[in-house]
Amino acid sequence: MIKVSVMYPNLAGARFDHAYYRDKHMPLVKRAMGEACLFYTVDKGLSGGAPGEPAPYVGMCHIFCESVQAFQEGFGPHAREIRGDIANYTDLQPVMQFSEVVVGQP
Amino acid sequence: MIKVSVMYPNLAGARFDHAYYRDKHMPLVKRAMGEACLFYTVDKGLSGGAPGEPAPYVGMCHIFCESVQAFQEGFGPHAREIRGDIANYTDLQPVMQFSEVVVGQP
Repeated sequence: MIKVSVMYPNLAGARFDHAYYRDKHMPLVKRAMGEACLFYTVDKGLSGGAPGEPAPYVGMCHIFCESVQAFQEGFGPHAREIRGDIANYTDLQPVMQFSEVVVGQP
Repeated sequence: MIKVSVMYPNLAGARFDHAYYRDKHMPLVKRAMGEACLFYTVDKGLSGGAPGEPAPYVGMCHIFCESVQAFQEGFGPHAREIRGDIANYTDLQPVMQFSEVVVGQP
């Protein structure tokens, strides 16, 4: 299994609507990708490693798929629709990473 | 539920032993923290958002706990032992983040 992490840097003055992201954008991603998206998770940044230190990322999602190819086949045909929704919740540019899930949730 | 993400930047020339991290270090963290660590996951970086682009992080773990306080109480007494093991798998300094789990794995 692989995961695609989409991580929004926690920049001062930037806009990020956590409610829209959770309630509208991520369900749209799942609807568009169908079974290619096995499931997804969403995080809201609380802090960095030290108390009071800002979180590196204000919000993140992780999209879990059987393979990189499964992600590309599921996401590609809907990329324009999904990307077109981004301005509705943020003006940030995300950092993206594909990872192999070495240890998953038990 | 919260998660503590420990993310190792993918720097050229750095050392990261994925097998040791999976087989020795993360089980040590779980043993030391006991029930305070509900579970953990481990990722291995494959690529960035574009094919062939390097992954931002070579490896990551995510430690899931009931609360930030539960993490601190579980990790604090063992911090020296856990940190003392880091040199066995890497010479990298991790980026750390505490996040609220807004949407967890179904």
